Amino acid sequence: MPTEREDRLIETLFARHSADGDDVLIGPGDDAALLRCPPGEQLLITIDTLNEGMHFPAGTPAHSVGYRALAVSLSDLAAMAARPLWAVVTLSVPVADEDWLGGFADGLYALADEHGLRVVGGDFVRGPLSITVTAHGFAREDAVLRRGGAGAGDGIWVSGFLGDAAAGLEVLKQNLARNVSSPRDHRDSSEERLVRRFCYPQPRIELGRRLSGIATACMDLSDGLLMDLPRLLRMSGLQGRVETESLPISGALRDYAGPDDSRRLALAGGDDYELCFAVPEEEEARLEALPDELQFTRIGNLYEGEGLVLTRDGQPWEPPDSGFRHFS
Amino acid sequence: MPTEREDRLIETLFARHSADGDDVLIGPGDDAALLRCPPGEQLLITIDTLNEGMHFPAGTPAHSVGYRALAVSLSDLAAMAARPLWAVVTLSVPVADEDWLGGFADGLYALADEHGLRVVGGDFVRGPLSITVTAHGFAREDAVLRRGGAGAGDGIWVSGFLGDAAAGLEVLKQNLARNVSSPRDHRDSSEERLVRRFCYPQPRIELGRRLSGIATACMDLSDGLLMDLPRLLRMSGLQGRVETESLPISGALRDYAGPDDSRRLALAGGDDYELCFAVPEEEEARLEALPDELQFTRIGNLYEGEGLVLTRDGQPWEPPDSGFRHFS
Repeated sequence: MPTEREDRLIETLFARHSADGDDVLIGPGDDAALLRCPPGEQLLITIDTLNEGMHFPAGTPAHSVGYRALAVSLSDLAAMAARPLWAVVTLSVPVADEDWLGGFADGLYALADEHGLRVVGGDFVRGPLSITVTAHGFAREDAVLRRGGAGAGDGIWVSGFLGDAAAGLEVLKQNLARNVSSPRDHRDSSEERLVRRFCYPQPRIELGRRLSGIATACMDLSDGLLMDLPRLLRMSGLQGRVETESLPISGALRDYAGPDDSRRLALAGGDDYELCFAVPEEEEARLEALPDELQFTRIGNLYEGEGLVLTRDGQPWEPPDSGFRHFS
Repeated sequence: MPTEREDRLIETLFARHSADGDDVLIGPGDDAALLRCPPGEQLLITIDTLNEGMHFPAGTPAHSVGYRALAVSLSDLAAMAARPLWAVVTLSVPVADEDWLGGFADGLYALADEHGLRVVGGDFVRGPLSITVTAHGFAREDAVLRRGGAGAGDGIWVSGFLGDAAAGLEVLKQNLARNVSSPRDHRDSSEERLVRRFCYPQPRIELGRRLSGIATACMDLSDGLLMDLPRLLRMSGLQGRVETESLPISGALRDYAGPDDSRRLALAGGDDYELCFAVPEEEEARLEALPDELQFTRIGNLYEGEGLVLTRDGQPWEPPDSGFRHFS
């Protein structure tokens, strides 16, 4: 039950994007937003909730919280090759601290503006710190990528580097415990680069759209490769073999964690929001022809069967303490 | 980071409505839902978060929590004269109790099925008990009702009875404190009827759609008339005068609270999810011709000016302790 002052805060927070009369007929401030859907395309909807203490540590800078909350949902749209268009947001906060709320909104709108997405509605409630974003995108039905659809013989690929965000979260927690200033103020050390990878994940919208027609299946990596890849394997009805030597590990992660822990983090660490996708051999030339800045790495192959098999030096291999057996 | 068991729980919970290939091309289980929008209509989106302890008391039956979470969002669509079509849901729970989750899902899908709405996606996270629903509906742009648009001279109307849900919440809290069994098991007393009005609000979808072309402005009452009506007045740029004798008060509320407290609850109590709307004199005949079961009452009139004025026996009147001055 917001007071009139909170009504005005909401207007400030969630009404930086007002109705434009083009696709947004009614924006924030009424009971619902009214929107004109682009003709000839289908609507994609995804919803995600981030809870303080669960999805980000207490004390994470407000700017990062706002940015990440939207990034997580946009990453789902990226995985399905959609063009993001609109989002609605609810923010639950224990107290209405205007500085915090301003930082949150700055982070949220920074990412929205990067992708030309409009925030068309929001709700603001009292409670434990938590953010829910529902993101809306569009794509032609035949251009959409799914988790199912990969074929035996396809390569397994991932974008970017894996494990950085999990290491960044470790560093962020240490910094917060030692009361070290917010990540945006640090020198550009390896640790700082890792923290930034946790705080500012980059939804791979451009890559997702370019993969349409090349990849046979796609998903984003939110819970880590060991948790997520089996979901794609189940939906496609296949076995995956991942060569652990091929996992893309950044210099920053190797500096921070050394080779063994880097591999462990690249397999089991969450929050990278990279894409994992399957590409048949005959499409590899088109994949390799994509612009260099859309970085991706082949990490293994798909076979008839089920489950995920890891290899090292060509032999089946299980990481010592990752709880891997549980998810295979 | 759900485990595989939780993955399966999610499938059970949020996948009772699978893809039908008609408007739902991809349902729950992929990174996003893929939907075909009905041609010739515009999309309406609304998002609401309900936190335990804030929007419903700890111990509220799971079935009611699921029902209410969707009802609150459908009420926003009702207020804009939209036809509900799809929803996505996130559920944050401290522990994955299958009985509780089953009751929650039963309540959610009961209301969804009443309105032919499909739950097309969901997320399940660990944290304090909280539910967010984003509901999607459609309407022709020229049929949509807004908060702005009312004219001086229009009557102010409300549907149903006011104050019941606030009284029902009081009773529910007393019952929970005394460990009285869940509201569905009670005898049909006045108190029981009030509790049901809190636990099972009825989104006025049918009334909203019938009001299209009759009402000049509309909103739903979630925070109570004293908080909500000023929002419609601001958006329409008018003053409202409400005759407190005309407030629709149920027999159950009068039995429970007596005349003075009934009036107080009808003015300041939230959670009724009735519609509040403006109708010009020349449309009153069409309003009165609507089916009897769509119950509504004229409670006042709109004038040039601003703010909300309450009257009693024709004289301006302020309720003793409602904090009314604050919101006028």
